[in-house]
Amino acid sequence: MTTNLPHRTERDEALRERAQRVIPKGMYGHQSVARLPEGYPQFFSHGEGSHVWDVDGNEYIDYMCAYGPIVLGHRHPAVERAAAAQQARGDTFTGPTERIVELAEQLVAITPHADWAWFAKNGTDATTYAVTVARVHTGRRVLMRAAGAYHGASPLWMPGPAGPEDGAYQLSYRYNDLESVRAAAAEANGDLAAIIVSPFRHDAGHVQELPTLEFVHGVRDICDATGAVLILDDVRAGFRLDLGGSWAPFGVKPDLAAYSKAIANGYALAGVTGGAQLHDAAGSVFATGSFWFSGVAMAAATATIATMEETDGIGQMERVGTLLREGLAGQARAHGLRVTQSGPVQMPFLSFDSDDLEARDIPRALRFTSEAVKRGVYFHPTHNWFLSAAHTAEDVERTLVMTDAAFAAVRDTFGADA
Amino acid sequence: MTTNLPHRTERDEALRERAQRVIPKGMYGHQSVARLPEGYPQFFSHGEGSHVWDVDGNEYIDYMCAYGPIVLGHRHPAVERAAAAQQARGDTFTGPTERIVELAEQLVAITPHADWAWFAKNGTDATTYAVTVARVHTGRRVLMRAAGAYHGASPLWMPGPAGPEDGAYQLSYRYNDLESVRAAAAEANGDLAAIIVSPFRHDAGHVQELPTLEFVHGVRDICDATGAVLILDDVRAGFRLDLGGSWAPFGVKPDLAAYSKAIANGYALAGVTGGAQLHDAAGSVFATGSFWFSGVAMAAATATIATMEETDGIGQMERVGTLLREGLAGQARAHGLRVTQSGPVQMPFLSFDSDDLEARDIPRALRFTSEAVKRGVYFHPTHNWFLSAAHTAEDVERTLVMTDAAFAAVRDTFGADA
Repeated sequence: MTTNLPHRTERDEALRERAQRVIPKGMYGHQSVARLPEGYPQFFSHGEGSHVWDVDGNEYIDYMCAYGPIVLGHRHPAVERAAAAQQARGDTFTGPTERIVELAEQLVAITPHADWAWFAKNGTDATTYAVTVARVHTGRRVLMRAAGAYHGASPLWMPGPAGPEDGAYQLSYRYNDLESVRAAAAEANGDLAAIIVSPFRHDAGHVQELPTLEFVHGVRDICDATGAVLILDDVRAGFRLDLGGSWAPFGVKPDLAAYSKAIANGYALAGVTGGAQLHDAAGSVFATGSFWFSGVAMAAATATIATMEETDGIGQMERVGTLLREGLAGQARAHGLRVTQSGPVQMPFLSFDSDDLEARDIPRALRFTSEAVKRGVYFHPTHNWFLSAAHTAEDVERTLVMTDAAFAAVRDTFGADA
Repeated sequence: MTTNLPHRTERDEALRERAQRVIPKGMYGHQSVARLPEGYPQFFSHGEGSHVWDVDGNEYIDYMCAYGPIVLGHRHPAVERAAAAQQARGDTFTGPTERIVELAEQLVAITPHADWAWFAKNGTDATTYAVTVARVHTGRRVLMRAAGAYHGASPLWMPGPAGPEDGAYQLSYRYNDLESVRAAAAEANGDLAAIIVSPFRHDAGHVQELPTLEFVHGVRDICDATGAVLILDDVRAGFRLDLGGSWAPFGVKPDLAAYSKAIANGYALAGVTGGAQLHDAAGSVFATGSFWFSGVAMAAATATIATMEETDGIGQMERVGTLLREGLAGQARAHGLRVTQSGPVQMPFLSFDSDDLEARDIPRALRFTSEAVKRGVYFHPTHNWFLSAAHTAEDVERTLVMTDAAFAAVRDTFGADA
């Protein structure tokens, strides 16, 4: 087995130069590689299953899965078939297709907390709609969110140039710190509309943190006691931990859940599910978009969810994710490097204990991921990774050959940990 | 030629019942038919060129074009080919594909005001990003917008339950009323970041109004004098009036323009173009979405714009739109009904002078469109219509057979106008 070097970059570089001339800063948003180390391609060519190829023909085992959307693997046949069947009829009309009813019925059937479903295009559309529904339902204004948590990229979620008014009536709490939730709820002083929470702490640039049982039940209890709406932001984790919603295993029902990313295996779709108690408020909020009713992404979603169910996609990710976690742990140990692997194995993250992640002083992580990507293993130095159900034990085996070399490079440069 | 009756509704009704159980109020947003008269289908089955079919098999000549997106006709071969070619490689990756560079280059090449382009999914994403860029560029806060104009469906654009803070720092002016623009700019008192304006007044529920030359140039002059950013909201009209932007025929360059709808003939995409003077601000704003970099919609956009150019799609819409306008005018006259046809012929709107549109007391319009839709002609009673380049003189000829019957029904029920 080779290590996939030399790593070619000519075409990527040429495209970057062209992009610099016609796209702000050459690329924008979370898919800009400006902050990633040497070796990362900016432009991709194609994908198949758990593998992707960049525009120079370099092949990668894909541990980012488009930052989440690809949950069954690239170009999964069942999904592509369902999407193509709808595309042959048309996608975007002056009204929805039958696909919206089928998908809503399917989500309501598999989701313990859901009596209805609603669809849009972006995760931000879903989280924003959920907050508006909660405010309408309660007649209150304050939104509580965890400090540092990402819930979207609009002025509501990232108050910016217009000043604090962009994010008026927001209070923060600390993830897994129930006391801070209680304090913020008290500060809201009867005006608490909603608490939004991620199923686990997956803030980029931090070690991931699973929720404590106390926190999960405590947040639900505080909402019940105050009449606030509990919004689960399942945009990033949805359909990777539990098909019924990421807090279903705890037996805790949110009032509203926001989905996107993996819902349609890469087709653009977002959704909100909610309980009957929110139905009237949900129906009274006007929010819409030109492509929110398009049929192809909905056909893809129905096929994605059905295939995940039929093939135990989550179980497959857990098995392969465990192999990866154990393999990486053993290698790091063998190289004398202390690492922390955090989050569910389906959405893993590895950090080096001798780096200072909080200060973003992470030379080991940058070196490790740079060496890995140049050898055909696509990890991310600061953002959690994603497995898909297409990842296999053989992928992990091949991955570990490359990571062994990447760990060796880290040790050779920075030395073993004491 | 038959009038396409009987109009079947069984399957649509069954789907509406199922939707009532799992979707808030049975449907939401602009594609809910709750406010439309009898005869309108909620669910569509397929489309081809200028024709669409509902789930009961009723065929319509499509004068709404999905509220704008379908500009070359449903399932245009060149667009479907380009999209399928990209889909065969994959759509959504951890980075963009070459398609984003090609599309940005194409837009910059055809758009006089543009030095760069940026992409997202919803029109609301585009207008929101434009405002944020303008605020960052100017370091100011106030956004001026025309009273009653639609620019998006998020809290920024539709301040709602959180109170006025949702829409902080917004002032309104009246479309085509330069004095009101000057007054609002003065009220902004040095804090004016941007004026957003539609290329013509196309507010739903109103007679459409073309901009006066004085208004177009005056708004530009006021931005120049105050240092405010001129944002053209070309989401609804873009690619139907002029491929270089809807104010290009006036020789007036906006600083930023927002696009969506017709940009990719039904594939979900939005965009912002801007001048070099906004490049730094554009590059410094963080806004992103899981599917904003997906390649298929971008391939579709490039093919859509190229085909519009090569086939003079706008000229075709103008020719057929003129036939429709003249035909409807003659029929209304012959039936003794006074109507107003407003807006560009590619985006027409017809209202009855004896209805009170402003008060939404529009029995004639409701009857006319209900009779038309039941005969296979899909108009809208309160929203502007859209033609596509697939509409033919034969479509108009067939349309006029049906509208003759619809006008007759209006006259028989409400009487001729004096």
